[in-house]
Amino acid sequence: VYELRPLPYAYGYPESGQTLINVTNGKLIRLLVNDQPFDMRYGTLYEHDRVLDLRAGVLTRQVHWRSPSGTTVRVRSTRLVSFTQRAVAAISYEVEPVDQPVKLVVQSELVANESLPDLGHDPRTAAALEAPLLGEETTTTDTGAVMVHHTRVSNLRVAAGMSHEVETSGTVRHFTDGGADVARLTVAAALRPGQRLRLVKYVAYGWSSQRSRPAVRDQVLAALAAASLTGWDGLLAEQRGFLEEFWSGADVAVEGDDQVQQAVRYGLFHILQAGARTERRPIPAKGLTGPGYDGHTFWDTEIFVVPVLTHTYPAACADALRWRCSTLPAAVGRAAQLGLPGGMFPWRTINGQECSGYWPAGTAALHVNADIAYAAAQYVLATGDVDFEQDTALPLLVTTARLWRGVGHYDAAGRFRIDGVTGPDEYSALGDNNVYTNLMAQANLAAAADAAERHRDAARRLEVDPAEVAAWRRAAADMAVPYDARLQVHPQHETFTEHAVWDFHRTRPEQYPLLLHFPYFELYRKQVVKQADLVLAIKLRPDAFTATQKARNVAYYEALTVRDSSLSAGTQAVLAAEVGHLELAHDYLSEAALMDLDDLQHNTRDGMHLAALAGTWTALVAGLGGMRLRGGQLCFHPRLPPGLHRLAFRVGFQARRLEVTVHPHHTTYQLLDGQSLSVRHAGARLRLTTTAVTRRNPVTPAGPAPEQPPGRVPARRRPVPRREGGSPT
Amino acid sequence: VYELRPLPYAYGYPESGQTLINVTNGKLIRLLVNDQPFDMRYGTLYEHDRVLDLRAGVLTRQVHWRSPSGTTVRVRSTRLVSFTQRAVAAISYEVEPVDQPVKLVVQSELVANESLPDLGHDPRTAAALEAPLLGEETTTTDTGAVMVHHTRVSNLRVAAGMSHEVETSGTVRHFTDGGADVARLTVAAALRPGQRLRLVKYVAYGWSSQRSRPAVRDQVLAALAAASLTGWDGLLAEQRGFLEEFWSGADVAVEGDDQVQQAVRYGLFHILQAGARTERRPIPAKGLTGPGYDGHTFWDTEIFVVPVLTHTYPAACADALRWRCSTLPAAVGRAAQLGLPGGMFPWRTINGQECSGYWPAGTAALHVNADIAYAAAQYVLATGDVDFEQDTALPLLVTTARLWRGVGHYDAAGRFRIDGVTGPDEYSALGDNNVYTNLMAQANLAAAADAAERHRDAARRLEVDPAEVAAWRRAAADMAVPYDARLQVHPQHETFTEHAVWDFHRTRPEQYPLLLHFPYFELYRKQVVKQADLVLAIKLRPDAFTATQKARNVAYYEALTVRDSSLSAGTQAVLAAEVGHLELAHDYLSEAALMDLDDLQHNTRDGMHLAALAGTWTALVAGLGGMRLRGGQLCFHPRLPPGLHRLAFRVGFQARRLEVTVHPHHTTYQLLDGQSLSVRHAGARLRLTTTAVTRRNPVTPAGPAPEQPPGRVPARRRPVPRREGGSPT
Repeated sequence: VYELRPLPYAYGYPESGQTLINVTNGKLIRLLVNDQPFDMRYGTLYEHDRVLDLRAGVLTRQVHWRSPSGTTVRVRSTRLVSFTQRAVAAISYEVEPVDQPVKLVVQSELVANESLPDLGHDPRTAAALEAPLLGEETTTTDTGAVMVHHTRVSNLRVAAGMSHEVETSGTVRHFTDGGADVARLTVAAALRPGQRLRLVKYVAYGWSSQRSRPAVRDQVLAALAAASLTGWDGLLAEQRGFLEEFWSGADVAVEGDDQVQQAVRYGLFHILQAGARTERRPIPAKGLTGPGYDGHTFWDTEIFVVPVLTHTYPAACADALRWRCSTLPAAVGRAAQLGLPGGMFPWRTINGQECSGYWPAGTAALHVNADIAYAAAQYVLATGDVDFEQDTALPLLVTTARLWRGVGHYDAAGRFRIDGVTGPDEYSALGDNNVYTNLMAQANLAAAADAAERHRDAARRLEVDPAEVAAWRRAAADMAVPYDARLQVHPQHETFTEHAVWDFHRTRPEQYPLLLHFPYFELYRKQVVKQADLVLAIKLRPDAFTATQKARNVAYYEALTVRDSSLSAGTQAVLAAEVGHLELAHDYLSEAALMDLDDLQHNTRDGMHLAALAGTWTALVAGLGGMRLRGGQLCFHPRLPPGLHRLAFRVGFQARRLEVTVHPHHTTYQLLDGQSLSVRHAGARLRLTTTAVTRRNPVTPAGPAPEQPPGRVPARRRPVPRREGGSPT
Repeated sequence: VYELRPLPYAYGYPESGQTLINVTNGKLIRLLVNDQPFDMRYGTLYEHDRVLDLRAGVLTRQVHWRSPSGTTVRVRSTRLVSFTQRAVAAISYEVEPVDQPVKLVVQSELVANESLPDLGHDPRTAAALEAPLLGEETTTTDTGAVMVHHTRVSNLRVAAGMSHEVETSGTVRHFTDGGADVARLTVAAALRPGQRLRLVKYVAYGWSSQRSRPAVRDQVLAALAAASLTGWDGLLAEQRGFLEEFWSGADVAVEGDDQVQQAVRYGLFHILQAGARTERRPIPAKGLTGPGYDGHTFWDTEIFVVPVLTHTYPAACADALRWRCSTLPAAVGRAAQLGLPGGMFPWRTINGQECSGYWPAGTAALHVNADIAYAAAQYVLATGDVDFEQDTALPLLVTTARLWRGVGHYDAAGRFRIDGVTGPDEYSALGDNNVYTNLMAQANLAAAADAAERHRDAARRLEVDPAEVAAWRRAAADMAVPYDARLQVHPQHETFTEHAVWDFHRTRPEQYPLLLHFPYFELYRKQVVKQADLVLAIKLRPDAFTATQKARNVAYYEALTVRDSSLSAGTQAVLAAEVGHLELAHDYLSEAALMDLDDLQHNTRDGMHLAALAGTWTALVAGLGGMRLRGGQLCFHPRLPPGLHRLAFRVGFQARRLEVTVHPHHTTYQLLDGQSLSVRHAGARLRLTTTAVTRRNPVTPAGPAPEQPPGRVPARRRPVPRREGGSPT
């Protein structure tokens, strides 16, 4: 649910953007103990635990507290956002006196338009986002309420409802009241020690851009009725059942690094939460965990998050891509606005319309189109979902392939060039022939041609003819991929390696992230990399580089990459592993893993970094497991750094689930279900069945350890024993 | 006088800009004829003439009008802005009845905070610029008034005053009144036919960022007293005397094209007006003739306007550059803000602080620094002003040379590269090794080294040591100048000639100027040129190109240049002449000449295009006269297009004035005063004295006529007889 607001930094179109807003808050439960507010900042706190149970899917809080005036209570709350009932959240809230009789008042609320901490300096933004919900209706019942609001400009209707069950053996009274922005159930109870008050609160939400007030209101009431019928225990059981099914095909077990073990499961849980019930809506960069990035969805959803879902919860992956497909009209309109054929997906968006006003790092970052195409093609390879390929992947691939043909052109030497675009690294912009962009566009063109030939009738309905398919293949074949023969590396874009190298030695530690301390004018002119760009190209297009090129490129770009983006560490971990620097891979893995758990960037309050969480999984599975999808086949190249004793991961592939268990010297593969499957281990074919099979791990000879810019070694790099060929800095 | 306002499109700093505001209007004189307002939209207009007399320096208006109720009057006004009394303007206003007695009321006013037509959409801008003057004091006298205001944020104090002389043989009464924003002299008179009322209004202005209210007020009163003492006839005589002196050394006579004849004098007059009394303040792109470009000064002052003053009114040129020099602290601060050494002049400014919020076409257009250095060095060559060189040119040259050394770097091949900057052409941005920028930086570095060696003590005070001078010379010698060997042209910047050529055939006439109809994302990626860039480099650095290269480059860029900027035609005229396309030169000359007189861009109401006006002079003198300053020597290469019979121009050079008269087949040179001077005619040495000397004009063999993009032939290209080798399109 979003509101529209003027863009502060627009230069030309777009002039307005979308901003995620808070819907009506149904989490609020206030407690008064003998007239004193329950507030842990006062009184005495004997015990306080908050536990997120990844297996049960609930957040539990236990408090043992004495009020300033000396009354002691125990409070226990458990809450869940249901995976199985899409509109429903629920809270169980229990209070009991410890040593003396007590009078309790519990106020359980629905509150709209809660004040926001910071709306920035632009008075136009504040005007748009302060109290964005206009009240339409509040109805109270005996034990609950429902409220309907709508937004001013985006004109979305939002309904929220609550209903309660009150249980106690003590004396109790309750009543409800409500206004435009607050509705409340008040429960007053008198309890003796040994008695307790328990409140179960069901909360339900609904929204629509089209449906009427009664329709949206009744949808919420219906969801509440269904939740009540299921009951609290029923919701708990459904939640656990759903997660059991998920973990059975997605768990990753790590021995030797408890932090990473916790982080990868924590990350999978959040990615599942962000994607499981998305149902043809976008997965934002921070899921729905916070207001960061205005709730926008970027390319990192397709490149970092969706691939995890592809192998762990493919239905969510398909839905996220179906959402992209549903925004094709906006993409086609945007391309037409810029005078380009095909469709052009937005750099950042909620509803499919471009929300980036700084075009050199937004509109010009055309690779987002190839990234979406890549995710769709990978999903088809990983699942064999033919219907999806025809209905969703094909339109996405065709529309983006048309864009590339329009954006690129043939030079006099017959190379297909893509000039003046921005790659993933936001410390360069408007370069010619960005290698990442060109290689991803090449794959996009080829995948579009393949899909069009597999689905000739569907392609014809999209007005694809053989000449167009041939043109895509030709452009892919002639794609310019610059190479610096002198340095024997791929320049991130043409002329990049001729630029001055950033003066890292004169950059002080407090001047990172660089974008907050140096102008883009300086950053763009120099060799300095915010986040993996060329190195990400190696991960996604492993076929386009020789082993030697990979190693040289990794070494070259390691020395330039400052990781001012949370998107980078996971990718660097994968490539460090591939070229044999396993301890470095472990370090980057740790950094990605702890991004939010340790709040490394001091902004976790704005929401979780979903792509960094995904990066932990990717670093383990694609990095240490070496998993790639090449030629439609799963390939593994397992290896463990010295600190890890065992890595076991489960992934889905073509309607099967398989488990890979990596030990220091060997790896065991086993299908958990489904028909036998041909995979590759270190390049050699291997047929998997439900009987485990073990192979020795390959050894990758590593060159000298790559160096990072001064002060930019991975955040959690710990001292390790010096080994031959390695020179930890 | 300017106010500060938030920048609408800022991305990072700067966040606020300066905007020219209207000072108190002293021009207003209202007339009532028998109680009816004198308004030419009503009644009957028998005669109405407005004449700008370029020799007298006055604007005269004569009206013969019958009011709607049938009273006929003649009104004659003459006004001037004094060249000789810097704070003073004056108006003579005469009314006489024609055929019957009449009662007249004349209201002569000072008005502050007149409402502006359009303040744009940003409410913050409107808030800053609506009624920007806060009243401090209004004092009325028997025949006049003085008002003092100040601006809210920029805190400038502005005083305006008026005094009057009233003459009539009829009956007359007058009185004054005044408030915060309006002061008024009211004259009521009863006249018979044969009698007339004459009002002389003296207006004076003063402003200061520092001085007190009484000081600024009294300065205005003093200026009024001086003007009254001089009297109207005295002011007229001073004005004419000043202009006689100017025209005697600056006139340009053209036979065969009356429009161009009028335009070049008209342009010289406006340039003189903009520069003559600038006195260490900037010369804005539109002078003080209108609100266009917010009253900002850009690089075109130094590259297009100042060179005209250098040869026609050198004192103004020196003052404009002294203003630049006075803003060196701001330039040094701006460079430091961006982490660069030396100084960095703003792309657009009033007070020396950067006002461009769109950095790819502002901050990144570093060439402005070399442009200022160029103008300073040329001025020194043209005048031999050693004091100026030491006090003004040297600091400018040293500071900008330091910037170039910091911006550029040596690549592996030992070339000095300047990456990621924007040249004059605003349809490309952030390119590597823009040829214009690199050649101008090269000249800047060399000029700094030369000046530092000529003024060793002064250089030492600027902490210049021999090692730094040597480094400047080395960077200049190693400057990268890309060349496309395949096309045998210079690419505007590296890789430019590999970009797709703009699809001119699919661009409709109403889609020009392109920047209003296409995004920069598309423009920057393509070969399309808004305004002469590489071609301007040829004009300013003729030594850096062979004759063949010049011809090939002109042909190549003619086909790409759409002239969506008024800065382009004059330069294209010069180069068309140099490579032998004289009719094309004449066409571009006409376009530059008529920019404002014929309102070709439909925006003359925003103010005169000073650089286009200068372009007319440049096209005649540097284009047809072939005048260049090379090796400290004036060189000529005269040639006339078929339509012109004679071109005579006077220019100043090293304290001499000379006249050059070009005829179709020969040219006559003569010194008007001063010691003999060695110049070059078509490459051959020629010693000039006060005795005229005549030489045959050289003939430049022209290749095939260059083609412009479809629909972009010069605005005033008229049919000309087809000649051998020419193919007019």
